[in-house]
Amino acid sequence: MPAAQDNEFVLREDQGTIARVTLNRPKAYNALSLEMMRALTRTLEAIGQDTTIRCVIVEGAGKGFCAGHDLRELRSRTDRAFYEEVFETCCQLMSTITHLPQPVIAKVHGIATAAGCQLVATCDLAVAEESARFATPGVNIGLFCSTPMVALSRNVPRKRAMEMLLTGELVSAPVAADWGLVNEAVDAEALEERVTAYAEAVASKSPHVLKIGKRAFYEQLDQSLDEAYRHTAQVMTENMLARDAAEGIDAFLEKRTPEWKGA
Amino acid sequence: MPAAQDNEFVLREDQGTIARVTLNRPKAYNALSLEMMRALTRTLEAIGQDTTIRCVIVEGAGKGFCAGHDLRELRSRTDRAFYEEVFETCCQLMSTITHLPQPVIAKVHGIATAAGCQLVATCDLAVAEESARFATPGVNIGLFCSTPMVALSRNVPRKRAMEMLLTGELVSAPVAADWGLVNEAVDAEALEERVTAYAEAVASKSPHVLKIGKRAFYEQLDQSLDEAYRHTAQVMTENMLARDAAEGIDAFLEKRTPEWKGA
Amino acid sequence: MPAAQDNEFVLREDQGTIARVTLNRPKAYNALSLEMMRALTRTLEAIGQDTTIRCVIVEGAGKGFCAGHDLRELRSRTDRAFYEEVFETCCQLMSTITHLPQPVIAKVHGIATAAGCQLVATCDLAVAEESARFATPGVNIGLFCSTPMVALSRNVPRKRAMEMLLTGELVSAPVAADWGLVNEAVDAEALEERVTAYAEAVASKSPHVLKIGKRAFYEQLDQSLDEAYRHTAQVMTENMLARDAAEGIDAFLEKRTPEWKGA
Repeated sequence: MPAAQDNEFVLREDQGTIARVTLNRPKAYNALSLEMMRALTRTLEAIGQDTTIRCVIVEGAGKGFCAGHDLRELRSRTDRAFYEEVFETCCQLMSTITHLPQPVIAKVHGIATAAGCQLVATCDLAVAEESARFATPGVNIGLFCSTPMVALSRNVPRKRAMEMLLTGELVSAPVAADWGLVNEAVDAEALEERVTAYAEAVASKSPHVLKIGKRAFYEQLDQSLDEAYRHTAQVMTENMLARDAAEGIDAFLEKRTPEWKGA
Repeated sequence: MPAAQDNEFVLREDQGTIARVTLNRPKAYNALSLEMMRALTRTLEAIGQDTTIRCVIVEGAGKGFCAGHDLRELRSRTDRAFYEEVFETCCQLMSTITHLPQPVIAKVHGIATAAGCQLVATCDLAVAEESARFATPGVNIGLFCSTPMVALSRNVPRKRAMEMLLTGELVSAPVAADWGLVNEAVDAEALEERVTAYAEAVASKSPHVLKIGKRAFYEQLDQSLDEAYRHTAQVMTENMLARDAAEGIDAFLEKRTPEWKGA
Repeated sequence: MPAAQDNEFVLREDQGTIARVTLNRPKAYNALSLEMMRALTRTLEAIGQDTTIRCVIVEGAGKGFCAGHDLRELRSRTDRAFYEEVFETCCQLMSTITHLPQPVIAKVHGIATAAGCQLVATCDLAVAEESARFATPGVNIGLFCSTPMVALSRNVPRKRAMEMLLTGELVSAPVAADWGLVNEAVDAEALEERVTAYAEAVASKSPHVLKIGKRAFYEQLDQSLDEAYRHTAQVMTENMLARDAAEGIDAFLEKRTPEWKGA
């Protein structure tokens, strides 16, 4: 039963309009085995279909956020077809986060390495405990972090990405925040509070408008400046025709709190 | 009469080779109504044709730089054609700045929000008063800042842009400077002096060379690395064939001040 | 004899698996004359063919790193064909660094200006002495730094690049490090030690894996997010099929040091 397997590797708990998703292989530093990646993708896809959820928090159980791929599993088979399946499943997971209608926030403690660092980079927002550390150490074990670099190099300056990829060394959370990999590095005691504050701020917006905006954000990043403006001008027009824009602007002009219709 | 309307919403004052353009709807925080955007575009287009001008400063009259679109006007009509006109006019304004032969410097005080923040991001350089604040708060009123995000996400790291877009919260000028949205945050008393220093530095260069360089800058940003090098190698060749390169290099080798021919 | 000329303008000294390349026109601030660019390109191409070398350090002899093109040479002829040759040779040099299988580290002291600044931006990593300074001052001599801007604008935020390009002013090493143009700015006494530490860290990895990763890094930067993931998923599969991935992962799981086969 897939549902049972999801429960095993990935936990989901809804708190009002916020879904909290926990990577749950604490003894293995939440390593992304094939089954783990599939469970996480399925959990996120279900959230994407759930119109009661406005924001998602992803975190790790146990001592750290996520240590990347499951190395024992990677070495359990040596055929091309298996590796293709593993890395396509990983890319599918990352794509699911990017295409999810709701914003996704990474809550990071301990280590976030290799595909775990990629997961942080792929989330829309990220908050880390000050003692958290990040790395793309694949080069140390003969497997360059080539898929993680896609997300990493789109979050931090080029030479910072190269430094992490070529040396494999750990980067502290304050440095990661300075480089743009995470939005903030905060005291361990403040982590839950800060993440919740972000999630509640996001969840207070119209989910319909968040969906429009998040999709447009990633679309326009891949476009030339002219294409991006042509596209987003159309997006703005569609957004203005939505009921939530009328409600939101009227509420602002009337100095009252808007009531989102979600459309 | 368009000219009279331009005078009403947008002021232009030339100081030698520097044109100072002031958004002049202080009671409305210089909100970008359709007429305001058209007046600003016309003023900039006229400057683009004026070979006596080498640099442009854009600033706002009254308490702040610019609060973005005119919300009352946006709600005054509810038809698709009107919204298309508004957002295409806005994109046309931003494109005019990017394609203007002269560099454009934003001088920012008070707030720069939504399309006002986009205006800052679109200018080639920006200097802000320390107390200035920036936001893309459209998400708060049901209208995601999808056109502002085009300029914003090309100026600041991805997670910073998402933070501003998803939360709508204000960012202080020193933080905006740290993220790259503005070049500097300075004391209120130093703002005019610092902006003038930038403008005079720019205006001391050959306007012909500034035009070549600014155009190439935005062209190559949209190209692959190989395309960008093929293109700019050609630009360098054309530049070397210009009289101002010969004059500039000879003056440098002869340790004298160059006299630009503007060709 | 080209070999003799290479010895004159560009020195190469191998230290184990690390090749040290020195720009050797100290009296001319290592200005990149045509012959100098060709010698450097040839030296790097030879290193690219040399499987004993795992990492390259590029530095400048004398008072500074590199002052860019040779201005006297640029003015020695005034025909289009000559300028095309100069700038194509320069782009060929930069492309050689980007496509070199081994990572290249810039060791910067004194000034790195115009094409010299571009050289720093083009290297995979860069460490600078605290007193080093960077500029793209072509605008001051009527020759906008249009080819340097390609590398510069892919390393630092857009408004920082424009500030350097439009004003031509010098940027200190700590500021360059803050912007991402170099990885670190260190005390003069620590420069050699720090560069060597980076080079040794890189040289301890599998050269085969470094080659796979460096190539994929620059390829994916020019692709859309979806293309980048499709491409790097394939790269990861190929990497997993390499002997060094098997060796590296097994060594990690067995808690021993890997022995790279270079394949």
